[in-house]
Amino acid sequence: MKTLDWNTLFGERARRIQASTIRELLKLTQRPGVISFAGGLPAPELFPKGLAAEKAAAILRDKGEVALQYGPTEGYFPLRAWVAEWLGLSPEEVLITTGSQQALDLLGKVFLDEGSPLLLEAPSYMGAIQAFRPYGPRFLTVPAGEEGPDLEALEEALKGERPRFLYLIPSFQNPSGGLMPLPARKRLLEMAMARGLVVVEDDAYRELYFGESRLPSLFELAREAGYPGVIYLSSFSKILAPGLRVAFVAAHPEAILKLTQAKQGADLHSPVLNQMLVHALVQEGFPERLALIRQTYREKAEAMLSALDREMPAGVRYTRPKGGMFVWMTLPEGLSAERLFQRAIEENVAFVPGSPFFAEGGGENTLRLSYATMDRARIEEGVRRLGRALKGLLALV
Amino acid sequence: MKTLDWNTLFGERARRIQASTIRELLKLTQRPGVISFAGGLPAPELFPKGLAAEKAAAILRDKGEVALQYGPTEGYFPLRAWVAEWLGLSPEEVLITTGSQQALDLLGKVFLDEGSPLLLEAPSYMGAIQAFRPYGPRFLTVPAGEEGPDLEALEEALKGERPRFLYLIPSFQNPSGGLMPLPARKRLLEMAMARGLVVVEDDAYRELYFGESRLPSLFELAREAGYPGVIYLSSFSKILAPGLRVAFVAAHPEAILKLTQAKQGADLHSPVLNQMLVHALVQEGFPERLALIRQTYREKAEAMLSALDREMPAGVRYTRPKGGMFVWMTLPEGLSAERLFQRAIEENVAFVPGSPFFAEGGGENTLRLSYATMDRARIEEGVRRLGRALKGLLALV
Repeated sequence: MKTLDWNTLFGERARRIQASTIRELLKLTQRPGVISFAGGLPAPELFPKGLAAEKAAAILRDKGEVALQYGPTEGYFPLRAWVAEWLGLSPEEVLITTGSQQALDLLGKVFLDEGSPLLLEAPSYMGAIQAFRPYGPRFLTVPAGEEGPDLEALEEALKGERPRFLYLIPSFQNPSGGLMPLPARKRLLEMAMARGLVVVEDDAYRELYFGESRLPSLFELAREAGYPGVIYLSSFSKILAPGLRVAFVAAHPEAILKLTQAKQGADLHSPVLNQMLVHALVQEGFPERLALIRQTYREKAEAMLSALDREMPAGVRYTRPKGGMFVWMTLPEGLSAERLFQRAIEENVAFVPGSPFFAEGGGENTLRLSYATMDRARIEEGVRRLGRALKGLLALV
Repeated sequence: MKTLDWNTLFGERARRIQASTIRELLKLTQRPGVISFAGGLPAPELFPKGLAAEKAAAILRDKGEVALQYGPTEGYFPLRAWVAEWLGLSPEEVLITTGSQQALDLLGKVFLDEGSPLLLEAPSYMGAIQAFRPYGPRFLTVPAGEEGPDLEALEEALKGERPRFLYLIPSFQNPSGGLMPLPARKRLLEMAMARGLVVVEDDAYRELYFGESRLPSLFELAREAGYPGVIYLSSFSKILAPGLRVAFVAAHPEAILKLTQAKQGADLHSPVLNQMLVHALVQEGFPERLALIRQTYREKAEAMLSALDREMPAGVRYTRPKGGMFVWMTLPEGLSAERLFQRAIEENVAFVPGSPFFAEGGGENTLRLSYATMDRARIEEGVRRLGRALKGLLALV
C-alpha cells in the first residue's frame, strides 16, 4: 500500500481546521450512566414527534414531487414567506439555511479575508469561532458578562480597528447566558451606526425567555432607526427540532443575495422536505408550543439553580439565566475546569470547559452547564455529583 | 434610511461568488408551457413517495428523539455503515454530506489556497466550478469528450504543474455524457499514482448505466492498486431523491477526518431524519428500484435520440449517452447557444447553454439537454420545437 502524507496535500486552510479537543472530550459524556450538562441539546420530550410523523407522511404522500425534488437556493417559498411575516419583513429579506451553523460559514465566506479583523464577545459561541477560523480572520474580543458585552471595552476596541463585522448573541448568550439590557442594545447600535459597521446578531434562543416578553432585537431596533447593517440569524433548532437543520438569515436584500450565491456553491439548497415539515409544524399550535418550551426550560433552570445553591462550595460563581439553556460558572482563580472535568467524569457527570469559547484564549477556570436536556431528578443528582467532584478538587488545592 | 455599500463591506472572496447568469436564464424555463431539458432534475415519477411517507412517519413516531435531535458530524452511523458495506469499505472511510455539492465545497475549503492549480475537464460540472471558484484556484483544463478527458492533453498539462487535485466525472459526465473506457481509467490512475496526485472522482450517476454493468470506478481501481489518493463522491440524489440532500464521500480515513472537521464548521451535521429515511429506503426493494431507474432513463434517452435524429438539421452533432441524464450538443462553429436559447424560449423549449461548464471559457456553440425530467411525449414535442428554433436561427446565418 502506497502512503500519502495528507498534511502536505491539504491547503493552508486545513491547518486552521482542527478537531476541537473539547468535542473529543465530549465523546466521554456519551458513556452510559453519565449525566451530561455538556451538550446544548434541546429537551427531546419537547420534540413534536407525533405531529411531525403525521405531517411528514402527508407531505410525502401529497406533495412528494416537491418535497423530494431539487428546490430553490433561497428556500421553500411558503416557509420564507412565513418567516418574513413572523419578523415583519418581505421574503427577499430572508434566506433559509441548513442550520445556523451554515449561516455562520456563509458569513465567513462572504465577509472575511485572511487577516480581516473580526469582533467577538469573550466568551462566544464555539461553533461560530469554528466557522470563522478557517477563513483566517484576526479575532478581536471584548469581555462579556451577564449584561452582554462590555461597551467601554468595545468603544476602546473600535479605536483604530474596523472589524468586518461584530458577532454578538445579545439574548441568552451561548455560553454565558447573558442578556443585553435595552439601553445597552441601543448604545451598541449607535456605535455601529456611527461607524457604518455590520453587526451579525445570532438570536438562536430568541423565544426561550423566562420573563413576560422578549426584548427587541438589535435587528428590530436597527430597522426602526433606518439602519440596514444588522444581519439577523435564528433557527428552528431550539423551538422545533435541531435534527431538521432548518434556520434562517434575515438581512438587507443585497446581503441576502450574496449569501444566497454563496449557499448555492455550498449545498445548492436546504432539504425541501425539512422546510415543508417546519412550515407545516408552525401552522399548528405554535404559540402554545413556544409557551410550553419556555415553561419547561424555566423550570429546569430553577431546578439547576436551586441545586447549585445547595451544592456549590463558596468561591464558585454562576449566572442566573433569564432565558436560554445555559448556566455559566466561574471557579476560584487558578482552578482548572479541564481538571474538574476529569474528576466529574469519574463521578459520572459532564459539562463543557469554558476555554474553547474564548477566541483569543483564557477562561481556564470557567465552564458551561446546560439544563436543557435532563429532567429535574437528573439535574439534581448531576449537580450533587458535580459538587462532590468540585469539593474533591478543592481539597487537593 | 441610511444606505450601505455592501460591496465595500464584503471580502475579496465575495467578488468570486457571483450569480450564475445561466441560473438566471433558467428561471425563464419555469414558465408554464415550457418543455425544459435544462435542469438536471431526476424524474419525479421515480420518487418513492408512498414508501417514504410510510417510513418517515414510522421513524418520527418510533425514533423521533434521534431523528429530531442533533447528530454526529460524520453521519448517522447505520447509514455510514450501509454505504461502507455497499462500497466494500469500513465506516471510518465514509462521510455523509448535505448533497454532493457540500462535498465539493469541503474539498475546496480543505485543499485549495488562492492560486492553487486545480485540474478539471472542459466541460465540467457547473456546480463544481461554482464550489471551487470562491477559494481562488487557478483552473487548468483538459478537453473531454465521449470517452472522457483527453489523456495526451492531461499528460501535457501535468508537465510542470502539480494540481491540488484532479476533479473528474468518469461515468456519464455532466454535462458531456461521456464515459471513460476501462483502459483510459487505468492509464489515468497510473499517471496520478506516478505523481502522487489526488483525484476527486464524482460518481453521481454511477447507477444510471444503460448497459449490462458498471465499469469499475477510479476509486475501486485505485484500491486494488493500493493507492489511497482517490476521493470518491456519490449521492442518493439520482437514485432516491435530491430533495433529501443526502450524499457521501469515501476516502482514506485521514482525508475523511479533515473533511469531517471542515463539515463541523459548515453545518454541524446533515439532517438526521433524512439520513434515517435514506437508510430505511435502501432496505426495501433497492436493487429493483435501481433497475427501474436505469430502464426509465434508457427509454427516455432513446426517445430523445430518435427525436434528435429526425429533427436536427445537418451540421449539428450530439452525443449518444451510455448512461446518465444528458445529451451534449455541438452546434456548427460560430453559432451561439445563448442566441439559440432565446429563440428556443420563444418556442417554449429550454436547455442549458454550454459555456458556463467551461472553467476557462469557450464552448459558446455547445449546449446540454437533459432527458431525465420529461416523459416521452414531451421529449418528442420539445425536440420538435428545438428543431424549429434551430432551423430558424440557421436561416438567419
